[in-house]
Amino acid sequence: MELGIKIWLEKEGKNILGGGRYRLLKAIDEEGSLKKAAERLHYSYRYAWGNIRKMEEHLGKKLIISHKGGSGGGDSILTPEGRILLEKYEALRRDLYDYMKQAFERIFTDDRL
Amino acid sequence: MELGIKIWLEKEGKNILGGGRYRLLKAIDEEGSLKKAAERLHYSYRYAWGNIRKMEEHLGKKLIISHKGGSGGGDSILTPEGRILLEKYEALRRDLYDYMKQAFERIFTDDRL
Repeated sequence: MELGIKIWLEKEGKNILGGGRYRLLKAIDEEGSLKKAAERLHYSYRYAWGNIRKMEEHLGKKLIISHKGGSGGGDSILTPEGRILLEKYEALRRDLYDYMKQAFERIFTDDRL
Repeated sequence: MELGIKIWLEKEGKNILGGGRYRLLKAIDEEGSLKKAAERLHYSYRYAWGNIRKMEEHLGKKLIISHKGGSGGGDSILTPEGRILLEKYEALRRDLYDYMKQAFERIFTDDRL
């Protein structure tokens, strides 16, 4: 038997950041471009942009800064708040997953199930 | 900001026990009847019964014992394995939720987000 787990951040009942939006934020950080991040995740540019907008609205903070560019489609970088959110989510996830593994092994140690 | 979490047990990629099936198993234990448990959760009897069957098949263990009754529709009680599964899931959930709360408060302590 294995343990499945899903975590997300929410604010006033509205989803802020879970698996999908985390991957989007991470890809923007790595690609330096919302357009390239969307392509990597097979999202439409509109969908990716809309998700960032919703996160920003619900949090009341800007998460990325975009510069309109020429043929390349412009650059996007995380704001300090965007970086804090990304890093804290990663730290929390790592921490919970490590603990969860231990707890699962401790509780489901016998083979009665 | 708050943390959302969902956990479930799976075996070879197949869902064994999550929120819904946990509530079903718990209700059977409390009601002493699959029929009454299904009613309490607003499930059809067929749906409730099918879920128990799937869990039993995937685990390779009987989880409830049913006695066909008269007008009352019969009784259902958990087998020892059913009880172990229920209790271990509850212990794991309680443990993870407690830890998760602490981890969340430790990591998201400042008001920069």
